[in-house]
Amino acid sequence: MSHQSHTLHEPSGQMKSAHPQLTELILRLQQTLEDYITHQETRHLQQDLELEKQNHSQATRGQETTLVHLMCQVVSLFQSGATNSLELQLDSGGDVGGGQQAQTSRQPDQLHHQLSDVKASFISNDLSDRGTDTSALYQSSFQDFTTYHGDKYDEDRNPSGFINLAISESNLCIDLITERLSRGDMTSTDEALLQYADWRGHAFLREEVARFLTYYCKAPVPLDPENVVVLNGCGVMFSSLTMVLCDPGEAFLTPTPFYAGFTCASRLYSKVELIHVHLDSEVTEANPHPFQLTVRTLEEALLEARTEGKKVKGLVLINPHNPLGDVYSLDSLREYLEFAKRYNLHVIIDEIYMGTVFDESIPFHSVLSMESLPDPNRTHVIWGTSKGFGISGFRLGALYTRNKEVASAVSTFGFLHGISGIAQHKLCRLLQDREWIDNVYLPTNRSRLQAAHRYITDKLKALKIPFLNRGSGLFVWINLKEYLDPCTFEEELLLYRRFLDNKLLLSPGKSYMCKEPGWFRLTFSDKFLHLKVAMLRLAQALSEQKQCLAEKQMKDTLKE
Amino acid sequence: MSHQSHTLHEPSGQMKSAHPQLTELILRLQQTLEDYITHQETRHLQQDLELEKQNHSQATRGQETTLVHLMCQVVSLFQSGATNSLELQLDSGGDVGGGQQAQTSRQPDQLHHQLSDVKASFISNDLSDRGTDTSALYQSSFQDFTTYHGDKYDEDRNPSGFINLAISESNLCIDLITERLSRGDMTSTDEALLQYADWRGHAFLREEVARFLTYYCKAPVPLDPENVVVLNGCGVMFSSLTMVLCDPGEAFLTPTPFYAGFTCASRLYSKVELIHVHLDSEVTEANPHPFQLTVRTLEEALLEARTEGKKVKGLVLINPHNPLGDVYSLDSLREYLEFAKRYNLHVIIDEIYMGTVFDESIPFHSVLSMESLPDPNRTHVIWGTSKGFGISGFRLGALYTRNKEVASAVSTFGFLHGISGIAQHKLCRLLQDREWIDNVYLPTNRSRLQAAHRYITDKLKALKIPFLNRGSGLFVWINLKEYLDPCTFEEELLLYRRFLDNKLLLSPGKSYMCKEPGWFRLTFSDKFLHLKVAMLRLAQALSEQKQCLAEKQMKDTLKE
Repeated sequence: MSHQSHTLHEPSGQMKSAHPQLTELILRLQQTLEDYITHQETRHLQQDLELEKQNHSQATRGQETTLVHLMCQVVSLFQSGATNSLELQLDSGGDVGGGQQAQTSRQPDQLHHQLSDVKASFISNDLSDRGTDTSALYQSSFQDFTTYHGDKYDEDRNPSGFINLAISESNLCIDLITERLSRGDMTSTDEALLQYADWRGHAFLREEVARFLTYYCKAPVPLDPENVVVLNGCGVMFSSLTMVLCDPGEAFLTPTPFYAGFTCASRLYSKVELIHVHLDSEVTEANPHPFQLTVRTLEEALLEARTEGKKVKGLVLINPHNPLGDVYSLDSLREYLEFAKRYNLHVIIDEIYMGTVFDESIPFHSVLSMESLPDPNRTHVIWGTSKGFGISGFRLGALYTRNKEVASAVSTFGFLHGISGIAQHKLCRLLQDREWIDNVYLPTNRSRLQAAHRYITDKLKALKIPFLNRGSGLFVWINLKEYLDPCTFEEELLLYRRFLDNKLLLSPGKSYMCKEPGWFRLTFSDKFLHLKVAMLRLAQALSEQKQCLAEKQMKDTLKE
Repeated sequence: MSHQSHTLHEPSGQMKSAHPQLTELILRLQQTLEDYITHQETRHLQQDLELEKQNHSQATRGQETTLVHLMCQVVSLFQSGATNSLELQLDSGGDVGGGQQAQTSRQPDQLHHQLSDVKASFISNDLSDRGTDTSALYQSSFQDFTTYHGDKYDEDRNPSGFINLAISESNLCIDLITERLSRGDMTSTDEALLQYADWRGHAFLREEVARFLTYYCKAPVPLDPENVVVLNGCGVMFSSLTMVLCDPGEAFLTPTPFYAGFTCASRLYSKVELIHVHLDSEVTEANPHPFQLTVRTLEEALLEARTEGKKVKGLVLINPHNPLGDVYSLDSLREYLEFAKRYNLHVIIDEIYMGTVFDESIPFHSVLSMESLPDPNRTHVIWGTSKGFGISGFRLGALYTRNKEVASAVSTFGFLHGISGIAQHKLCRLLQDREWIDNVYLPTNRSRLQAAHRYITDKLKALKIPFLNRGSGLFVWINLKEYLDPCTFEEELLLYRRFLDNKLLLSPGKSYMCKEPGWFRLTFSDKFLHLKVAMLRLAQALSEQKQCLAEKQMKDTLKE
């Protein structure tokens, strides 16, 4: 099955340099059209398979939505006059012709009808361009999550509801947390909690965060509460940091795969380019582990970006890593930081998963533990309680930076990203209770993470699904390439939708900007019953998928 | 005392049209320089008055900070190459010469030294341009608030601490709220509250907000929870609405004076131009009440803005009004909405003060009470619990809009503006308890607001300070023009600083974009003891100010 990219014209070089937004749109449009055409071909070949048709029609709608949205954006750009200054050299006749030709052989009327329907939901008299983009972001990133919230699995009340192994949260210790939060010291209605607070966060919470990180990160000297800012989430903290460190269009090196929330944060607010430094799953001499981050890779990416005229302001690190589960050695960490210093790059390091290292043989090293940071003024640590304590609903994101300017500038965002005072009080109490954390919570959480990880990885082994066996995180990074034919992101999306049809949510690698199609993130830190049902659904979906692939291959063979 | 604006060159017309950001900076720079020079003259004349010198030196530092910041921004714009395409026709020699000349007669070395100090705190290798701007916003808008948080008045422990009548919050019913929040139904540690929720807000809260608004706004039909979005604050809701309704640089008509948070929200994120529709305090035939909002004023502002090529997308209304305390009649409200409909404008109407109408003779009309809204698809209501319930620390901002597209696009911001689940639960319980609200909270709150308002306005009358006597809000809008000589915003800032020196925070009219210098917003919904001490400090500050003015006038007379 061949792609038809040769039928679509390349945007002209002039346009590329003159109008990056337009160029990007056109490139996305082109890619989506290619995927769409490929998909229509598949559909054509398989139109007698009823099940497959259903799935495809779902995927088709998704593609059409994207297509029309991109087209609307381009039109809107032209209408807005933003492109007036460009002498566009697009051969629009040829371009549209190619597309139309492709359509003609695929029931044009029906297609046109579908497009109109989708278009109606996108062409808006009310939303601005960025409002339309925001709406599209909601539909692509949060729509399934919203659907899940309206139809959650429950053994008794809703046994056919969704099980969500796509979201990274843990409810393994919800009993402990609930018990702790119910104790008397948690309840306070102190006046200060009910009113406007210091936008950096209440002093009592910043002090407790500093003490907590000093202790659990093994900081050589006590951390200073004045270097702490708390906002309502770590994605927010990333957004705020990139807002104050970069102007729009400036860039951060971001090894892939990486946490999808950073992309959303950038798209919503900071408009920072996250330069994807693609890591490789293949093990070679230069790449001793799958998805190994090396200074050489970083350096090459940086030099290439600079050659292209990009203004690279920093490097994003995630340790322990989401979605890989990697925990960096002290040596590796130091190398990355030294590299950043060498090139005057800021480092935003997200350590939110520090509390999830369940393999006791793996030591976690916070950058805050280092006797001397290579570039303390340009090293900014993000941390929160969502993962280690399994309380993402509290919305805590904390920053630790010795750079006073950065801390002060980030504080301003407290005006629009504050946390409820009563939640700040409870968080403070929780972090304060070292005895409970050390003797009750941490050991129990660790053993439950180990058990859940063991259960899931045993099932994966039984299903012969390869996965990265790391010792941290709330998820495993699994490889489902062999269920894709061809191995494309288009097929990855179809597989994602097949899971959805089986009432199971997994996260496709594409949302982590993984270079290679076929990877998924699967959360294991859920109730045993959920995991059991989820793995049955996974097996069922993969079995359906395998059968389809077999039938497809047979058809291909017969055709030859 | 004459301004020296004639010594400063006007930016060239070409630049004005070619680079609005630069133009704005230059204009601000020019205005600040003028103020600075005026101020230096005052200082020169009064250098033997020790007290005055101290105050001036404070004000001087503030001006210099602003000056240097603006200069840095201009330099940064040039360095960034953003102005490369412009043929700047600035006579820089003349410009700088004018400035230098002015400095020369005013101890240039000392000034240079001061400027260097300030500059060091602004020129940054780490912050982006917008980071620098964000930092400046913190210093200008939140610095005094942060200082207050570190040095709050307490009768016993800190009797010389700050009293804050600048912030609009009420603690008059903190006893009732605290008691209500302590009841058993408030405590829940349900698993769903501790984890990621629907980004629009938990369904139970959106349902309760819809029920609450249906009842208290007297909606003709039950409001639909699907039209509700909750985020962490009303400023946030304003920001998110303008994000999805406008592209950067597009505009909303905003009658002045108006809530300062909208300016901050726009400056931090949405970059929407708030076109100031200046209302007048002077009563005339066309302006029957001070600061009367009329359709004629709106229409003139709209046409002028459109003539200037501005893309006006909507109108901001605040009802009851902050800082004026006005409550719109149903007729006025309908006129504003009809005007907006006529010109295809969205209306963002902030009704957060609906629970603060303490004068029982004044009926409040929510737009949600209207049998037929002129343009329901373009009318977006903001509401929250901060003012009516005096619990700003909870951070609730709710949107009600029948425009599905807008609701959906705004929902996306829940990803970065979520409220803690446990806070959502408590808010729901609070809104649910109609019996308590109707029989305990509302009557008590109303009578306490009345009493506090009476106390403060009696004091104001005794001090012969004019004020707007409205029946809503947590504040009075007072007129201190007679304490300014000359009546400039520069002098208003000095008076603000004199209040600060007396450990009293009031809000100057400038921050509400009031056209006329001399107005201040004074919050009365505070503890009686605080009000008493605050009014003593106010009287003391005004007496000092009066003495200074008298001495200044005597000097002027002698000089003549």
